[in-house]
This record gives sequence, structure tokens and C-alpha cells, in this order.
Amino acid sequence: MANSKYEYVKDFESDAKILPHTWIVVRIDGCHFHRFSADHMFEKPNDENALKLMNSCAVAMLQHFPDIVFAYGVSDEYSFVWRETTRFYQRRECKLLSLSVSYFTSVYVMRWKEFFPNKELKEPPYFDGRVVCYPRVKIVRDYLAWRQVDCHINNQYNTCFWMLVKSGKTEKEAHELLKGTLSKDKNELLFQQFDINYDKLPAMFRKGSCIFRDEVEETVKLDEGGNPVKRTRMKVTVDHIDIIGPKFWSERPYILKEDLK
Amino acid sequence: MANSKYEYVKDFESDAKILPHTWIVVRIDGCHFHRFSADHMFEKPNDENALKLMNSCAVAMLQHFPDIVFAYGVSDEYSFVWRETTRFYQRRECKLLSLSVSYFTSVYVMRWKEFFPNKELKEPPYFDGRVVCYPRVKIVRDYLAWRQVDCHINNQYNTCFWMLVKSGKTEKEAHELLKGTLSKDKNELLFQQFDINYDKLPAMFRKGSCIFRDEVEETVKLDEGGNPVKRTRMKVTVDHIDIIGPKFWSERPYILKEDLK
Amino acid sequence: MANSKYEYVKDFESDAKILPHTWIVVRIDGCHFHRFSADHMFEKPNDENALKLMNSCAVAMLQHFPDIVFAYGVSDEYSFVWRETTRFYQRRECKLLSLSVSYFTSVYVMRWKEFFPNKELKEPPYFDGRVVCYPRVKIVRDYLAWRQVDCHINNQYNTCFWMLVKSGKTEKEAHELLKGTLSKDKNELLFQQFDINYDKLPAMFRKGSCIFRDEVEETVKLDEGGNPVKRTRMKVTVDHIDIIGPKFWSERPYILKEDLK
Amino acid sequence: MANSKYEYVKDFESDAKILPHTWIVVRIDGCHFHRFSADHMFEKPNDENALKLMNSCAVAMLQHFPDIVFAYGVSDEYSFVWRETTRFYQRRECKLLSLSVSYFTSVYVMRWKEFFPNKELKEPPYFDGRVVCYPRVKIVRDYLAWRQVDCHINNQYNTCFWMLVKSGKTEKEAHELLKGTLSKDKNELLFQQFDINYDKLPAMFRKGSCIFRDEVEETVKLDEGGNPVKRTRMKVTVDHIDIIGPKFWSERPYILKEDLK
Repeated sequence: MANSKYEYVKDFESDAKILPHTWIVVRIDGCHFHRFSADHMFEKPNDENALKLMNSCAVAMLQHFPDIVFAYGVSDEYSFVWRETTRFYQRRECKLLSLSVSYFTSVYVMRWKEFFPNKELKEPPYFDGRVVCYPRVKIVRDYLAWRQVDCHINNQYNTCFWMLVKSGKTEKEAHELLKGTLSKDKNELLFQQFDINYDKLPAMFRKGSCIFRDEVEETVKLDEGGNPVKRTRMKVTVDHIDIIGPKFWSERPYILKEDLK
Repeated sequence: MANSKYEYVKDFESDAKILPHTWIVVRIDGCHFHRFSADHMFEKPNDENALKLMNSCAVAMLQHFPDIVFAYGVSDEYSFVWRETTRFYQRRECKLLSLSVSYFTSVYVMRWKEFFPNKELKEPPYFDGRVVCYPRVKIVRDYLAWRQVDCHINNQYNTCFWMLVKSGKTEKEAHELLKGTLSKDKNELLFQQFDINYDKLPAMFRKGSCIFRDEVEETVKLDEGGNPVKRTRMKVTVDHIDIIGPKFWSERPYILKEDLK
Repeated sequence: MANSKYEYVKDFESDAKILPHTWIVVRIDGCHFHRFSADHMFEKPNDENALKLMNSCAVAMLQHFPDIVFAYGVSDEYSFVWRETTRFYQRRECKLLSLSVSYFTSVYVMRWKEFFPNKELKEPPYFDGRVVCYPRVKIVRDYLAWRQVDCHINNQYNTCFWMLVKSGKTEKEAHELLKGTLSKDKNELLFQQFDINYDKLPAMFRKGSCIFRDEVEETVKLDEGGNPVKRTRMKVTVDHIDIIGPKFWSERPYILKEDLK
Repeated sequence: MANSKYEYVKDFESDAKILPHTWIVVRIDGCHFHRFSADHMFEKPNDENALKLMNSCAVAMLQHFPDIVFAYGVSDEYSFVWRETTRFYQRRECKLLSLSVSYFTSVYVMRWKEFFPNKELKEPPYFDGRVVCYPRVKIVRDYLAWRQVDCHINNQYNTCFWMLVKSGKTEKEAHELLKGTLSKDKNELLFQQFDINYDKLPAMFRKGSCIFRDEVEETVKLDEGGNPVKRTRMKVTVDHIDIIGPKFWSERPYILKEDLK
């Protein structure tokens, strides 16, 4: 029973490929996570365990897909940067997108219990995704800066908002109070009313999370004299650090290294 | 702290939309499931629980996404047909693809324990996906027929192959023996050597699985005389049935109903 | 001297193909024809020779590209409908677009002298183009209706506008006078002020131009008795006729014939 | 008479835009020019007038479209490089392609008489086109090198081929004689048999044609003392020069200048 009669339907498939020599960003985003986080009683404005679960999934992504060179996460969103010269599935957009989103989702559900040992998953968490490509390192860095600035703006606002709500304001009142305030006004409000120094809040909340391979030094064994023998290797690392300025990148030139072409 | 300096990076995003008035098929496929099924000791050629888990996920898809009108699954693959006039996320391809794959994956991991109560998940199961669109009902039906014919061809081959292997042949010998055989040769082999009537094997193995909304009659309550009061409603249903011929479709014209345009 | 060192640059090419079994419309449009028509002193609101030149080019298109089944033109715009099953250059979008636009342009310049024997071309006329595909005959017909309705609306407005201007109004006054008027108001204005019965104006101005292959009867020779021996053949024909209603299409079912699939 | 009933057909249009910050190459190519050049008795292997007509059209392109920064032509093919940051028609691919091809075609027909005063155009010359984009200057240069190497390979072969044919060989014999020959073999053949020093052949044949804006010094007027007052300005220039090596580009860094991003 040959299948040739129907095989013409394959002609409708198209395998669009991403332009060579561009950096590929896959950004995933929790779908209906406003409701999901309410249903699972995530702490506001930041639920430390929820963020750590996201980070754990992102680490798994870098361990599983060697061509991901950097990831940046904030809230229920994560961006994965694939290296410029990746040939993963011949750069087919559908493959890159679906495999990234699916793997992330799978790890998220599998590791839920590790981070929320006392909470049952009430509904399936799921994520949307998109693929964007950038022709230059400089623009990839601007993309990541865009996300980190967004992290800062949102976190500062949300910190104020939830402190006001917890102190008795209605949500509407809290929004009214914050309307039109500048960054320094919000810092002042936190300090004056709630004795909070914004800059002392956990870096994970203020800076988001960066995942990358970093050089680490390990003791392999002791030599005859009992002295440690060390070696360096690349290890997937989580940090909460400024990626807007040049420092992070100039110290790690291997992360976003442009091909000679 | 305005974010405008970096917002130009959004110009690199493109939100390709799927041509209106075409039927959209999202096909997902287990990634590295050859190894995954070996690692989890799935029965060969068909693991009933693994198939039922797939079906359970597909049912969840139709319940969650009302614009999916039909799904067809075989092995670690599932095709979801979105109705021609869907406006889900303005028909943006990235959204349709990523949300479908992610939701399916999430349910797969969450329900694993229901179908494999005694097996731990050893690694994250994940799926790739693709989007294809078809401009006519006739072609959607040919697409589904293509998948069902494929199911038949593969299942018949695999049934012979694994019976030969279980009876002591090496995998190489089994492939050699089957090389060039016709459909009726394989049925004959199964019958002569293994006393198996292929047509009596479970329909789920031979036909794959169809998921759709079907009219079901329910007893709502009893009337004063104790007689059941019934009503019909649409219920997501799983069946293992021929979708190559016209019968299934002519009995359910509402499933693939072409818009007047 | 092999060229392999540089051939990698071909990987950046992509040959996007148009979805099979859809009707392809290539619409071309004069670029800066407002200025072009002024520079060449085209008559307002309609220059008969300019329209006839456009029609002549469209006829050449149907003669040169057998898979174009219908064309509709108005003003400096022309739409070419390629049959649903065309395999012209494997349906590559770039080829269909560039060849259509280039051939039309070439014929336009070559035949200019035929239609404007006393006018030199002062600058190169050129056209932009776009490709749209439609999955159903019904939608192709709605597309063509859209263009013909547009033709009517614009022509009625322009006829009034230019009569007012020729009668001494400024362009600004003419626009003011027409603002908010309905179709019947405009007909009334033409009749009352200028003694023009709109419906008696040339059909080419009111209906635009349709190009298609039509059955024509020809006398091949005379038989021994001196009686004409006739045969029918398909001939590329220009007509100015209603294509919004069903009559035109039901009389010529072969023009937009849907494939069985 | 409103047109809203049919306007839904516009939803089928898509205005795909080219990725920002990439160099856009539009390459056009004569369609069926093998036959066209035979019909118009172009000289073989190179018709000087035909090449000059092509160059004249390319010069017109740079004069008309300021965002074209470089063009390279060989035989009936021309590549136009648009600057990386062009916003021409919002970088819509259809517009860039159709307008380039149409304008080139229009000028080609209009200027035919200038270059072939004694030859009538027997059929409409027309061109196909494609759009490719390159994310780096280095790759654009490799693209142009690819075309110039191709020019060399083809021209050397064709020069030998036509000399052999003109000297009495059949076309088949000529191809046989050249099969497997290296570059230096061909030069030797030309020199030994036909007393031709390949390197002395016109540069236009060997190198193709480059069009770009170059600094030129002009005498504006004479001062009181009768001495010339000069100024430099950018002028569209044709040259036949090596663009594979770095010299050309390092002398004219403004042509392919990468944006800071």
C-alpha cells in the first residue's frame, strides 16, 4: 500500500530558515501567568521560588543545547541567545522555536516539585515563544539591555505597588499614587514610607538573571605533597549582574564573539 | 529611566501571519523519542500506555483550544487541525506553534504518572512542531489520509519486525526478511508464523487515534414519571476509525465545514 | 580558478514559494504616475490613449504568460490573476513578481509611440508590484469586485472634480464642493451643471478593463459551395464589463475554474 | 457606494520587510537573453554596445535611487547594493524588488536606440530579479567577489570557445577541447593559436563593470587672475577594476560603511 497518492500534501510545507550569520534570540513568555501565579499563590512582587524554577530551566537549556551562549530571564520571561554560526537543524525557524519552548516547558513541569514541594500544579503551565534575529553583536547587547532596563522599571514599580497594597491601599489607589512618579520618587517612597533601600533588595529581583558559561577553577586532586591540583573548565553559571554596561562583556569576550566574516 | 534608547531592537521582530481562510495544521513530533522510549522501556511495537498518554494530551488540547476541530495521532506524533476561520492570536504563526507545542508538552509531563504510575520520568520529554496550511477541505482530508496510510504501513512493518525479533531473529535479519515484501506478504507472515490475524489487532495500533467533538446524548435528570430526560451536547471524543474514506466525514459534516467564502 | 571560496554567499538566498493551490494575483501600479501623467499631459480625468496603452500591455501579458487567466485594469494599475495550479518557476514569488513587472514595463515603453505618436517619453515610466494569493475562487472574485468598485468610486469623483475645475473652480473649491456627497448627488451634479449623463460615459472609464481569453468564431475558408467554414478558438479579448455580479463569470466558467482538489 | 464589503481581501496581503541593519542586494538577470542576444545579433563572446547599454541603465539606477551605493554588472546581469540603513519603502521586499527591476527595464528600452541606432527591438527585453540580504560588509564584499570571479571564469571560457568556433570548430568540438582545461591552459591556447594576450583584452570584458559614486574634481570658474577654482563632488562613475582584493575598498571606505550599531 504505497502512500504516493497523498504525498503531494508535503508540498505545502515550507522550511523557512533563519538568515545565516545572524544572532538568534528565542524569547519565551509565560502564557496567562497572571492567573497562573495567582492560582498558585506566588508571592508579590517577586516569588523567589518561581524565579529559581525559571532559572533552573534556563540552566537546563544551556546544558542541553550547546549553541545557546547566553540567557536572560526576568519574571515569567526568558530570552535565549543562539550563537551566530549555529547550524542547529539548519537554522529552521520552526525547529528552533518549538524545541526551545517544548524543552523549557518540560523541565518546568518536571522540576516544579523541587521548588514547590508543598504545592500541587493545578493547571498546565505553558509558554509562548518568538524568534528574532540580530545581525550584529552590538544589537544583541542592546536587546539584552532593553530587557534589563525593562526588568528594572517593572520591578521598581511593582515593589512600590505591592508595598502600598500590603499597607492598606486598594490596587486602584496604589496605581494612582504611582502615576507620573520618576525613578527617584519611587526610591524615596520606598525609603520614607517603608524603610526600604531599593538598592539593597535582592539582585535577582532588581537585575534579573543571566545564564552563561563561565570559567571556574576546580581542585582535581591533591599532588604527592598534598597540594591541590587545579584546572579550569566552563560551567553553566547563574548571576544577577549588570549587562547594560560594557564591563560584563569585556570580561567575557568569548560569549558574544563575532565570526570573522 | 526611559527605555526608548533600546526599543529600536523591536524593529527586528516580525509577526508573520498565516494566510486567512486556510486550514492550519500544527504537527508535533517527539524529539529523540527513539531513545526516550528505550529509556522508559516502552513496549514494542506499540506501548498502549504511551499512546493513551498522547491521546489524553490531545484531548486536553481540544478542550483548551476551541478552534482546534480535529486531531490525529500515531506513535509519538500528533496533528492538530485549526478551523479555517480561526483568529487565534491573529493567526500569528509563532504563537500558534509555540503555544500548541508548549501546552501539549506540559500536559504530557503532568499526566505521565497517571499512565505510568510505576515509572519515573528519567529525562524531559519534548516535541518539535511545524505549521502547515491548506487552502481546501479536500486537501486537509488528503493530509489526514496521508498520516493514516503512514500509520498503517509503519505499524504493519513494525508488528512483523518485532515479532521476528522476539522470536529470535536479530534486528538485521528481521529487516532483511521484510525487505521488498508487500502488504499481503506481511499479513501472511504474521498469520503463518505467529498465528496473528493483523485485522484483529487493536484498532488504536492499526488506525491511530482521532480526536474530535461528537454529539453525545446524556440523561440530564428524570422527569416526574421517572423517565430519563435527555439532551445532546458536543463532547471531545477519541476514536480509532477510518478517515481515508468518505464515511467518517459525511457523517460529521460540521468538523471540516468550509466557510462560505 | 575555482569559485568555491565565495560560494557560501548563496546560502543567504531564499526562494520563497507561494502556497500551492491558491490563486496568485500580481498587482502592478504606476510609480509617481501623478507626476508622470502631468509631465506627459495626460487628459483628465481619463486619458484614452494612456488607458489603451495599459490595455495593450496587459494583452501582451496574457499572450506571453499562458498561466495568466484574467487581468483587470484601471487608471495606472493592473491586476493579473495566475491560475491556481500554475507551476511557473515553481511558484517562486520573486520570479513571478519581477518577471511580470519587468515584461509589462518593457512593453509599455516599446509601444508608447503607437499610442502617443507625437509625444516623446520624457522620463522612464516604471511600476511597483505586489503578490497576493487567495485560497478560493470566491475570494478572487471579491478581490476583482473590490477593484471595480474602486474604479467606479474614483472615476465618478474624478469626473465631477475635473468638470468643476474646467468650469473655473479651483482644485480646493472642487474638493470642498464634493466633500460628503453621495453617489447619486454626483450624478445629479454632472447632469444639472454639465449636462452629462454619467451612465453614458465610455464604459472603459466607468468599468475599467477586463482582459481574458474568450471564444471567438472565425471563418477559416469557404467550402466548395462558397459557404464559410467556421471554427471557434480562444482569443485574448478586452472588454469593459461588470465583473461584480455573477453573469460574466457564469457565462465563462473556464476562466476561474477551481481544481478538483 | 461604499467599498467595505470587499475590503476584507486586503487582509491577504502581507508586506514582508527586510531585516534592519543588513545590506540588501537586488540582482537582476536578463530573461531568455540567450535567445534575445541571438535575435539581435549581439557579438560573441562580448557585445560592447550591449554591455554599455547595461552600464548606462545601472548608472541611471544610482542616479535615481540614492540608497544604492554600489552596482556590479557582467553579461546580462547586474547586482545593486542598497545601503545597510536604507528605509526605502520601509524596506518592503516587494517594493525594492519590483521598483528596481521595473526602472532598469524601462531605461533599457528607452536607451536602446542610443546604443543600437541601427537595430530595431524585435521583442521586449525583460529581467527577473531577486533580493538577498547580508548582515556584514565582509559578506557583501565576498558576494561581489563571487560575481567577479564568475565573470572571469565565464569570460575566459567564452573567449576561447568563440575563437575556436570562429576558427572553424563546431560548438561541440569547441566544448570538447576546453573540457578540463585550467585557467593557464586557456591563456596558453589563446596565445598560441590566436595570438591573443588575455590580459590585454578590454577590462570591461575581463573584470565586469562597477558603478559607484566617486570623488571628482571640477573647475567651477576662473578667479580674477584667470586661475581655475575647483571643488570636489560625488559623481556616479563606471569602472572596470578589481574588487576582490582590498585595494579598491580601502581607497573608498565611504562606499560600504558599516553603521555604528
